[in-house]
Amino acid sequence: MLRNRVLTALVTIPALIWFILWSPTWMFQLLVLTATFIALREFAAMGLDGIPYAATMTTVGGMAIALAMAQGQSGVLISAGLVVCLVGTLLLTLALAEDMHESVSRAAIILLGALYAGMLLPHFIWLRALSQGPALTFFVVAVAMAGDVGGYFGGRAFGRIKLWPTVSPNKTVEGAAVSLTCSILAGVIVNAVLLTRPLPGWEVVVVSAVAGMLAQCGDLLESMIKRAFDADDSGWILPGHGGVLDRTDSLVLPVVFVYYYAILGAA
Amino acid sequence: MLRNRVLTALVTIPALIWFILWSPTWMFQLLVLTATFIALREFAAMGLDGIPYAATMTTVGGMAIALAMAQGQSGVLISAGLVVCLVGTLLLTLALAEDMHESVSRAAIILLGALYAGMLLPHFIWLRALSQGPALTFFVVAVAMAGDVGGYFGGRAFGRIKLWPTVSPNKTVEGAAVSLTCSILAGVIVNAVLLTRPLPGWEVVVVSAVAGMLAQCGDLLESMIKRAFDADDSGWILPGHGGVLDRTDSLVLPVVFVYYYAILGAA
Repeated sequence: MLRNRVLTALVTIPALIWFILWSPTWMFQLLVLTATFIALREFAAMGLDGIPYAATMTTVGGMAIALAMAQGQSGVLISAGLVVCLVGTLLLTLALAEDMHESVSRAAIILLGALYAGMLLPHFIWLRALSQGPALTFFVVAVAMAGDVGGYFGGRAFGRIKLWPTVSPNKTVEGAAVSLTCSILAGVIVNAVLLTRPLPGWEVVVVSAVAGMLAQCGDLLESMIKRAFDADDSGWILPGHGGVLDRTDSLVLPVVFVYYYAILGAA
Repeated sequence: MLRNRVLTALVTIPALIWFILWSPTWMFQLLVLTATFIALREFAAMGLDGIPYAATMTTVGGMAIALAMAQGQSGVLISAGLVVCLVGTLLLTLALAEDMHESVSRAAIILLGALYAGMLLPHFIWLRALSQGPALTFFVVAVAMAGDVGGYFGGRAFGRIKLWPTVSPNKTVEGAAVSLTCSILAGVIVNAVLLTRPLPGWEVVVVSAVAGMLAQCGDLLESMIKRAFDADDSGWILPGHGGVLDRTDSLVLPVVFVYYYAILGAA
């Protein structure tokens, strides 16, 4: 398992760095939209197992939102995407409803999936389009991945006290502390090396710490969702790393945070 | 019941006409946002009965989206509203989760409520801000209300064949047909009388027919949601008319349809 993780990482990390820092915009967008599409399929397979209309509607609805976001920041387009997602789900549910309780609960799960898997990841497209976008994108990925790696090895080395056994049985308080430290370190380094207008010392520590904590929360969130659906890994696309949802769970909250933080700072 | 309906209508219809055609923008926005707020509270009371955090999150999340839409058509603000709604719901669910299945299902219902009650009605603000906005808003309300009234009396007079007893036991095919006829008539009249640039004859019939059918679908949708939550009327704010959700159920799909149709036609 660890061997597979490391081998996969050796192949994908250089590719990821290239995508973030140097790929043309359309290629980066394609990467994010492809990941979003796979994440939606994984969510549907996990949470709406065996119900084809619901799985399809999750994908269609989530992609409507994601594609609208990829087009830019038109409120009309994004609302139209949401309307496709919401009204499509409701009308389809009405047309196919047998048991009302179950059908409406399922409609709600479709919306959860479309939003969770469909609207957070596309923030990467928006973040990378900012003036320091590639560096900020690298910042988010570095903070989250350093936290993942730190949490994994820190937990193995020092882990004693369980963090939240009902949600994620393997997480420990010590692992979380090492994870947070690694996130902050990664944030400070990327800030100093890559950002042309770096954040001042105290600010980068706070931003990295918040992003690191959000990364860990995102990890716990996905565990919660998997547990609710009695699923194990979300998919198998990356050997040893589970699926796209598993790999991006720690990215989705930090990217949203850093994006809105960056544009508020610029305003 | 009918007496109450008629009396309430006699008071509210002139007020409604004034709000639609002549009120200042801020007052119309306030009306729509107030209705949205009450609709969110009603949804929460119906679907998340007795769970205060879930009811509050539905209201906060839905209002975040509605207020973002009221600000204009900024994709960034609308996405930020959605993020508040989605991430707030998920983190709150994580923090308070006991049983994962139930908590995640409840999170999904919160999102359904925030979107259904929070993002459809604010399209009225957008529609009324168009160049023919007040007239188009009147068009939507007239088509939907004529359909409601026609369906009610048509069903009482001629109703024999049940339309969809599992969703809404009192609806009949004959009522639906009279409803659609009244919607088309109302659309044709408003188009001729109020629109400064009226739609050509065939187009207004098609648009009114689609809006009328969507009005009836919206009515069925709300019945489905109420049935799923074992609720009767959504609220009691208007004597004889149930709550805001009950009164706006036939408006929310036509307003969305007419808005996007109008801006596509203008583009």
